[in-house]
Amino acid sequence: MKDFEFFLPTKVLFGKDVLKNIPRELSRLGKRCLWVFGKASIHKTGLYDKVKSLLQKAGIEWVELGGIKSNPLLSGVKKGIEIARKNQVEFILATGGGSVIDTAKAISAGYFYDGDVWDFYEKKAYPKKTLPIATVLTIAGTGSELNNISVIVHDEKKIKFSLRAHNLFPRVSFLQPELTFTVGPDYTAYGAFDAFSHVFEVFISREYSKDCITTDFMISLMKNIIKTSQKLVKDLKNYDLRANMMWCSSLALCGLTKTGIGAYKFLIHAIEHTISGAYDIPHGLGLGILTLGWMKQNKENPRLAEFFEKVFDLDVKKRGIEEGIKEFENWLNSLRFTKNFKDLGIPKQDLDKLAENAFYILKVWKAEKDISLEQLKALLYQCYEG
Amino acid sequence: MKDFEFFLPTKVLFGKDVLKNIPRELSRLGKRCLWVFGKASIHKTGLYDKVKSLLQKAGIEWVELGGIKSNPLLSGVKKGIEIARKNQVEFILATGGGSVIDTAKAISAGYFYDGDVWDFYEKKAYPKKTLPIATVLTIAGTGSELNNISVIVHDEKKIKFSLRAHNLFPRVSFLQPELTFTVGPDYTAYGAFDAFSHVFEVFISREYSKDCITTDFMISLMKNIIKTSQKLVKDLKNYDLRANMMWCSSLALCGLTKTGIGAYKFLIHAIEHTISGAYDIPHGLGLGILTLGWMKQNKENPRLAEFFEKVFDLDVKKRGIEEGIKEFENWLNSLRFTKNFKDLGIPKQDLDKLAENAFYILKVWKAEKDISLEQLKALLYQCYEG
Repeated sequence: MKDFEFFLPTKVLFGKDVLKNIPRELSRLGKRCLWVFGKASIHKTGLYDKVKSLLQKAGIEWVELGGIKSNPLLSGVKKGIEIARKNQVEFILATGGGSVIDTAKAISAGYFYDGDVWDFYEKKAYPKKTLPIATVLTIAGTGSELNNISVIVHDEKKIKFSLRAHNLFPRVSFLQPELTFTVGPDYTAYGAFDAFSHVFEVFISREYSKDCITTDFMISLMKNIIKTSQKLVKDLKNYDLRANMMWCSSLALCGLTKTGIGAYKFLIHAIEHTISGAYDIPHGLGLGILTLGWMKQNKENPRLAEFFEKVFDLDVKKRGIEEGIKEFENWLNSLRFTKNFKDLGIPKQDLDKLAENAFYILKVWKAEKDISLEQLKALLYQCYEG
Repeated sequence: MKDFEFFLPTKVLFGKDVLKNIPRELSRLGKRCLWVFGKASIHKTGLYDKVKSLLQKAGIEWVELGGIKSNPLLSGVKKGIEIARKNQVEFILATGGGSVIDTAKAISAGYFYDGDVWDFYEKKAYPKKTLPIATVLTIAGTGSELNNISVIVHDEKKIKFSLRAHNLFPRVSFLQPELTFTVGPDYTAYGAFDAFSHVFEVFISREYSKDCITTDFMISLMKNIIKTSQKLVKDLKNYDLRANMMWCSSLALCGLTKTGIGAYKFLIHAIEHTISGAYDIPHGLGLGILTLGWMKQNKENPRLAEFFEKVFDLDVKKRGIEEGIKEFENWLNSLRFTKNFKDLGIPKQDLDKLAENAFYILKVWKAEKDISLEQLKALLYQCYEG
């Protein structure tokens, strides 16, 4: 096994009506907060009123930053930092999905920093001090509620970069599966695929390949996400399915899958960030299209065969790798994924430029050795009509 | 899924030569520490000198509490509290296995408490404030390095009680698998069985029985521990086996196996604490004998069938539960476990009294509904010559 560091200081409150603990838990973080949330749904579902009354009950004052959209923008982060500073908040409450939580993390990191918060995302600076963060999760997928990663889109550059820092773990995350009942089948599926991809990418790129508990844990996560997602898109208010999906997606990128197997590598994520950064498509959907394309390009990869053997229980030697790819495609079809970039409306003439942008991100992530620019272009063309 | 809280704030440094980080990590905890360790082995292996020079390098002063034995005594804890207070230490460094770490936790809890530290173990008081703890693990098994549990034996009463508190997680744990190379096949096996038992007991008593990630995670842990232990007792210096065993045993009782499946229940552990508290036998060995006895008494338990199906890949309907129990016994034989209490030298006339003591612990643990006193007696007699 490879050496590793494991640190996961977020307190998780998971289950029915865990929101009732908001007053107790948030009072520990301070008396004044910045409350970050998304678009209309928080009002439609009644969550805004619920959280508002709990904050009032706790005697916590707040200022609001609403309207954060998926593929969250740097401009929103900067606005948040300004509001937070003006009101001298003591902590940040994020109520939403990955985009809202990632925005909260970016504000947390930028609050005490004199320079441009984007410096952190370009690895030009590191956040020495951060504001505490609490999260209330409303969609499962990114795992941001249980890790120290933030992904933000630069408004002008249209690029999506990520930041990871030891002091960006939420202090407390409220995981109440019922809050995801109103997420439609499309975003339920995109979230599931994002979580799956967090494990799949590590599984296929891991340096330590002997059997160990971490490998088995990854296999279990992928199996659970695949099976649960298929049932869930047809049964959106099933508590146990929502709960299993929520906990799987939180665990998928919390650091456990990294223990003992070498460096985290997220090749397909890096490429996808280029696509969703530029065209504002759902991240999970972009990942699905790219992953299928990657499989078709990497049929000889022994890790891919191992994946089909262990996760799909397929005898690859006997039935062939194509059979595995077909089963994987069947899963995507059951999630009603769009088939390719063309159907998503991405212009074909942009592909070369997209490949170059993606290659730049790979360099920032120090993953440029895993694919050549030519292979990258070929992958994007494969995904265009594939 | 059931509601749960998950909190695991220990920082883990795992791998080859992680001890080199002792100066950096311990300096964060303070300038003066109580260093707790076990008997002769720390000197024989050179670990004492290694840690000593690292403490000196960090400019950390220390006072020592050595000689802690397995089934650690309350008297050692009290001595530690006295030394710690007299020297006004700022944190505790535990270098050893579960007994040493559990002693450190007890001292940590007792340091700021005016009453008798045993009050915590009898649930008459709760530790409000504790000293920070760092651990260097030298034997895998108890999982104490990654949880907030401490188990201590009362010298006069000869009973073993446990304490769990939110502020007793080690701040940092150094897991260097090579430090366990010198552990003999016997204690390697006892440690492995202890770790296995932490998962098995939860698996058979869990309230939520549908498939979910937690169940799969438990199955993976048990499979890994069984397979790895069989190889390990014949290959004691195999790094990958030692590493997998160490990480499995840390994960086995870190709280992850509890997520979503209901209350933790440790019936066999509660009973075994009575035995090893009274006769100072190895905890893991006592667990092995009792678990086999419990299986023979609970052949109709559907969870036991599920265990054999999922962990031993046995078709129980076709081959019968006895076949599973036989395979389980084969595993214990491969670990060279003593067969029964008689061979361990436990007097037969003590069994009734032991059963009564065990029943008392079950009441303290609020688990007395899971077995009657008569069943408990029958179990101990079963294990006497079984």
